[in-house]
Amino acid sequence: MSELFAGLQQLLGASHVQSCEQAAPYLTDKQGHYVGAVLAAVHPANTQEVAAVVRLCVQHNAPIVVQGGNTGLMGAATPDASGTAVLLLLDRMNRVREVDTDNDTLTVEAGCILQSVQDVARNAGRLFPLSLGAEGSCTLGGNLGTNAGGTAVLRYGNTRELTLGLEVVTAQGEIWNGLRGLRKDNTGYDLRDLFIGSEGTLGIITAATLKLFPLPKAQATALLAFESLGQAVEFLSHARAGFGASLTAFELLTADCLALLREHFPQGPQPFIKATQPWFALLELSDNHSDSHARDAFETVLGEAFDAELLADALIADSLAQSEALWQLRENMSEAQKRAGRNMKHDISVPISRVAEFVEHTNALLQAHFPGVRHYTFGHLGDGNLHYNVAHPIGSTVEAHMAHYEALSLLVHDSAHAHGGSISAEHGIGQRKLAMLPRYKSAVELDLMQRIKQALDPRGLLNPGKVLLSQNVKGNV
Amino acid sequence: MSELFAGLQQLLGASHVQSCEQAAPYLTDKQGHYVGAVLAAVHPANTQEVAAVVRLCVQHNAPIVVQGGNTGLMGAATPDASGTAVLLLLDRMNRVREVDTDNDTLTVEAGCILQSVQDVARNAGRLFPLSLGAEGSCTLGGNLGTNAGGTAVLRYGNTRELTLGLEVVTAQGEIWNGLRGLRKDNTGYDLRDLFIGSEGTLGIITAATLKLFPLPKAQATALLAFESLGQAVEFLSHARAGFGASLTAFELLTADCLALLREHFPQGPQPFIKATQPWFALLELSDNHSDSHARDAFETVLGEAFDAELLADALIADSLAQSEALWQLRENMSEAQKRAGRNMKHDISVPISRVAEFVEHTNALLQAHFPGVRHYTFGHLGDGNLHYNVAHPIGSTVEAHMAHYEALSLLVHDSAHAHGGSISAEHGIGQRKLAMLPRYKSAVELDLMQRIKQALDPRGLLNPGKVLLSQNVKGNV
Repeated sequence: MSELFAGLQQLLGASHVQSCEQAAPYLTDKQGHYVGAVLAAVHPANTQEVAAVVRLCVQHNAPIVVQGGNTGLMGAATPDASGTAVLLLLDRMNRVREVDTDNDTLTVEAGCILQSVQDVARNAGRLFPLSLGAEGSCTLGGNLGTNAGGTAVLRYGNTRELTLGLEVVTAQGEIWNGLRGLRKDNTGYDLRDLFIGSEGTLGIITAATLKLFPLPKAQATALLAFESLGQAVEFLSHARAGFGASLTAFELLTADCLALLREHFPQGPQPFIKATQPWFALLELSDNHSDSHARDAFETVLGEAFDAELLADALIADSLAQSEALWQLRENMSEAQKRAGRNMKHDISVPISRVAEFVEHTNALLQAHFPGVRHYTFGHLGDGNLHYNVAHPIGSTVEAHMAHYEALSLLVHDSAHAHGGSISAEHGIGQRKLAMLPRYKSAVELDLMQRIKQALDPRGLLNPGKVLLSQNVKGNV
Repeated sequence: MSELFAGLQQLLGASHVQSCEQAAPYLTDKQGHYVGAVLAAVHPANTQEVAAVVRLCVQHNAPIVVQGGNTGLMGAATPDASGTAVLLLLDRMNRVREVDTDNDTLTVEAGCILQSVQDVARNAGRLFPLSLGAEGSCTLGGNLGTNAGGTAVLRYGNTRELTLGLEVVTAQGEIWNGLRGLRKDNTGYDLRDLFIGSEGTLGIITAATLKLFPLPKAQATALLAFESLGQAVEFLSHARAGFGASLTAFELLTADCLALLREHFPQGPQPFIKATQPWFALLELSDNHSDSHARDAFETVLGEAFDAELLADALIADSLAQSEALWQLRENMSEAQKRAGRNMKHDISVPISRVAEFVEHTNALLQAHFPGVRHYTFGHLGDGNLHYNVAHPIGSTVEAHMAHYEALSLLVHDSAHAHGGSISAEHGIGQRKLAMLPRYKSAVELDLMQRIKQALDPRGLLNPGKVLLSQNVKGNV
């Protein structure tokens, strides 16, 4: 047993320190792309213990990897295979520290499951709007580490915009208490936003003060059909003007997505079976007044859109059950793709004004290079964020298709970049997109990032090999 | 003439380089607290020229101070008296680079006057919501440098929340092009938010991509009377639930503020002359539908509030002229105070849930230590941000009162801090609050800030003596 392992046992109690073998469930990422090894996995009880673990690791020069619900898609929470790292699990740190309904804030620890944070808010008569597929198992710490997005970004913003304050353990094992519940505080550098989205490479987020919102009194949902993606973009502008902040979701699906859902969920909802339109969008409106008020707003704005030919067809949910059935479509997309066999996923964003051009250009490019590939394009049009997924051609195999991953993804990412976009809208960089970064970030930007990494974690012990290539971490000029 | 001065002339043309004498109008801050001196003041034409100026200054080890409209209240844009600095004025950099209504973004240079940015947006049928007293002369660069707030933060956020991308010249004279119009981009550290609010000490912001919003179709305004500050806070919660994001302003005034306005603007609006309530708030609702829709929402929510005894009285503006008259009250507060003689201004914020407790406690504390001082408390209750201003006692003089500035402000700031608050909600630190910072920030936080300053500006040439004490800038551990 190593000296560090013994020290960790002494610090936390033997039952809260696991060997590499015992930690096996944490060492493979969700997608099964990465398998790591650790010197130990530890479950500290509180922030002081996290800080003490970090100080001990610093003494032993041991890397520290923090993991939440292990639901990330980029391998950011999986240690490397060297077996030198200490894996920090915050599952015991899931306390609600404060609910302040007059200030509309909630202070919770990083190990809380997202769904339980939503529940705490709802029980206090408030909304915590962050919502995403993995919400039943992902943790707030992971959401903060990756600046998670989800389906309510259009109205409420990413995790970054939902966060007022943080508590962070630094790479030196000190505790920064930045748990402020303030909407306005201009007293120095914005450390909060630097830690958010840094994927555990700059500090370890142990708690956060989050913004709460009023619970909407009513919601209205519709599935809309469009003649073209350009028409959907134009409609979105119209809907933003007509609904204002009441517009809470605008989720795009293609006709091919609907067909895939029909094939793999034959018992599920089957809207627009005979429709000829190629594009659809799920629209959700939240209302502070009443169901009838929401319905009136819907009819006004959709009616104007029909008159202006910004909309081909609309199916308005007239019950909660119908609304849930429409959302089911969007939520089943992930599973439908899985049932159809692995495909290539791309989490890109471009300015909303360039979405149509991006899709047209990239589809044509892929057909030219990889004839017959099938496009399952869907996602958060209101944020310019598409899950631009590509499946194998009919008559070919998944394996033959996946063998082209590098070359095909390069075309997609190059195209997103050329359209002023991002190669990772909401999933982060982790280890999966690490090597791609220098192709799309300027040398100036990478240098600024490296300077910050070097300043906050000069020994490079926090989540090494993620976000930034470690050989790129260098001294200041 | 120094070598640097000549070099600057050669770089920019002699007509764009001023001597210290010629630069006199820029060398005193708005409040008249600080008078600086410079080696030269320069007016570069574009970002490349800014970068070249920085590189030349680095060669000559000359500090660089950037100034916008010179409307800041903390002396952040005034160089020190040594005469060694180069003052960078971006008045020639006021181009609109792109208006993208489908993406709801606007890319403009940092030298643009805020009001002209608002106008460009409006002419494109969109709203750029940042709005503050100095909007006719402050520049976007200054707004970004201080993360300016203003009267629409409740709905739209501070300058930070309104910004998607930046272009920045680094302390090394390199150009970072981060002008992305993306709502989602999780590809590395959040450099954008690090530069925003850093008051020119980490880099020089030369352009920004800003968020636009739909223009509201209607607005409704009311002046509300409350029996207590606690009642106003409770009403605010009710209003947030009832109006949702339509609630765009909630500006607090005391009965003493209304009396001061009556005294100094006898021709101005005179609402609630006979009211006995001590607290008032100006409420603004923006509506995406129509005037009648806004009015209906107003009547519903205010009616419920009366029934629940969350509101003592309400004056609803029934014309645009009346609405403007009510806003005039709020906007005249600054001038009314000036006419009454200098007072002590404090720009504090606390959690909204603690505003009432803060005011009660701090008022009592000041009366105990400085009997008879008069309180002019007003500001952005919806953001927990109060302009907690304190005037001389009747029978005393302004001068005698102002002599207690240090001691009185210490009590106010200590109290804000003790109530979980900030000593600078929207004005920044500059040089005015520099020495106060170590009292209210933990050593860990100051160390993190110093590490970042050292990493990005290791020579300490960018706006020295602002935000962080320069002797505190030190090497990494």
